[in-house]
Amino acid sequence: MGALDNSLDTTPGADFIDTLSQKVLENDRTALAKAITLIESTKKEHQSLADKLLEKCLGNQKESVRIGITGVPGVGKSTFIENFGNFLIKRGNKVAVLTVDPSSTENKGSILGDKVRMETLSNEKNAFIRPSPTSGSLGGVARKTRETIILMEAAGYNIILIETVGVGQNETTVRDMTDFFLLLKLPGAGDELQGIKRGVMEMADAIAINKADGHNVKSAETAKQEFSRALHLFSAKENGWVPKVMTCSALENKGLEPIWSCIEKFVEHTKENGHFSNTRKLQNKKWLRQHLNHILLQDFYENPTLSASLSLLEEKVMKSEITPFTAAESLLRDYRKTY
Amino acid sequence: MGALDNSLDTTPGADFIDTLSQKVLENDRTALAKAITLIESTKKEHQSLADKLLEKCLGNQKESVRIGITGVPGVGKSTFIENFGNFLIKRGNKVAVLTVDPSSTENKGSILGDKVRMETLSNEKNAFIRPSPTSGSLGGVARKTRETIILMEAAGYNIILIETVGVGQNETTVRDMTDFFLLLKLPGAGDELQGIKRGVMEMADAIAINKADGHNVKSAETAKQEFSRALHLFSAKENGWVPKVMTCSALENKGLEPIWSCIEKFVEHTKENGHFSNTRKLQNKKWLRQHLNHILLQDFYENPTLSASLSLLEEKVMKSEITPFTAAESLLRDYRKTY
Repeated sequence: MGALDNSLDTTPGADFIDTLSQKVLENDRTALAKAITLIESTKKEHQSLADKLLEKCLGNQKESVRIGITGVPGVGKSTFIENFGNFLIKRGNKVAVLTVDPSSTENKGSILGDKVRMETLSNEKNAFIRPSPTSGSLGGVARKTRETIILMEAAGYNIILIETVGVGQNETTVRDMTDFFLLLKLPGAGDELQGIKRGVMEMADAIAINKADGHNVKSAETAKQEFSRALHLFSAKENGWVPKVMTCSALENKGLEPIWSCIEKFVEHTKENGHFSNTRKLQNKKWLRQHLNHILLQDFYENPTLSASLSLLEEKVMKSEITPFTAAESLLRDYRKTY
Repeated sequence: MGALDNSLDTTPGADFIDTLSQKVLENDRTALAKAITLIESTKKEHQSLADKLLEKCLGNQKESVRIGITGVPGVGKSTFIENFGNFLIKRGNKVAVLTVDPSSTENKGSILGDKVRMETLSNEKNAFIRPSPTSGSLGGVARKTRETIILMEAAGYNIILIETVGVGQNETTVRDMTDFFLLLKLPGAGDELQGIKRGVMEMADAIAINKADGHNVKSAETAKQEFSRALHLFSAKENGWVPKVMTCSALENKGLEPIWSCIEKFVEHTKENGHFSNTRKLQNKKWLRQHLNHILLQDFYENPTLSASLSLLEEKVMKSEITPFTAAESLLRDYRKTY
């Protein structure tokens, strides 16, 4: 693998991508990690290599189910994913775990954190755990996660679990790259039913009340009934799927079987009525839009002949000498002249 | 005011913007409402008129304080803003109330809602209440709110209250267009202190524990102490301001005076050390970036010669016949050729 063996600092030779993609398709873990590093790199030469790599992976993907998993901090997502992942692997699946959490940029220790918190799963040869890319904005994180999904599927992973923390727009982002959306909840519904979480509930294909163990078994049942009633108030989904509410205890490995069986039924149902492939098509369209917007802006901001006037006009806008409108129009005119 | 008197459907004459800006500067309420409609319009000819209007307003603005107000649903934001607004007007200020809430697009009744929920304030001649623009994305809403602030200041409003609901990125957006950020909280801290709300707490220049009335007076005091302790754990702000924690009862008009006095001290402090104007400069820079990104993408997507190839390539990406990377590169090449 030549120049990239130990780092991505130098630009590798022409056959590098051929070799790397071959190794990714063979599920070589070192190559996979390197490929992800390439995808997450912000250097322009790496991005163009990453695009080439992904070109080779697209069309060579394993048929997969992409599952989004969300819930507030403390709901037990890590334990759930660890035990659900192990459950799936025992049934012959290969499981990739990705995370979308732009806020984790502040906490660079998240790689270690993920390894520690999913110890048994990370030691499984049929599991691959990758924490959130630390690239800043939600848009950037989303783009890189989407690309990592392709890599994972090319490497033969057939179940992709994408975890996110339950805040604001993260869920919508993860919804836009998954087939099935699972919402984890705590026993004791109450406040959870109201307010801002409604949007997330509407996205869910299933809700699992976790921590249904010990003293919580009864309150989990109550919560299940409350959520079932609440879900009935939402209008029917276009794909004809009726969201399910279940209880589970990730800690005690209880209730994982029904959740998987629910996901299997969902896949069967939506493949039958065409919504599975239709959703993926629409997601591809969004992916194109996001990538297109990204390279359009990149083409402007990385144009060396514009950087001087950008700085100058920025300075003037900061001092309120000209308006953002005048400055932007002038920059657009300059940009057009460069072609 | 000619052609725009009753609607914005037709393109008005050349002196329209002169007349409209003049009336805005005179704080003519009908003109203000019309100007906002122009700003919020998505038609390209309206956008260019809106830019011209804002050019005339920039530099003619009243010296102002822009205050962001956030808190979870149920914390009493409407009551707080209504009574705080009335309090400020009694002291000779002119108060504009804007809202940033992209989710309100789903609920077109929000205009009526805002008028009803702030009845006494909306009848004040020195108050102007404007609900969230219904333009979809957070980026679009932010841009239009930023522009509306300029209008309001040109019309002589010297206190701009910008309300947002406490979800995800909204707060960051509002933080980026205000001088002072006030977080409203409920008595009974507990859960509030942990997890995802930390980022919002770090943004706050002051926290007001609202509903400190009746049975809640004691728990509000406890919450105040807890939040004060929690704030001490954060690193000092660059502007040297130490965030304050207060209690209030918007309903009973209690504790509003200390909040205003805190804001006055903040303004004095940050004007003295230069951070007030420096923050506004950096906000102007961000504003330019946002507007620039908007017109760069608009220039691509509204180019009629590209729409056919965009549709064609979108179709191919949806069917996985080509990758988003190949499609985007090809579109960028086509775009460059148009100049």
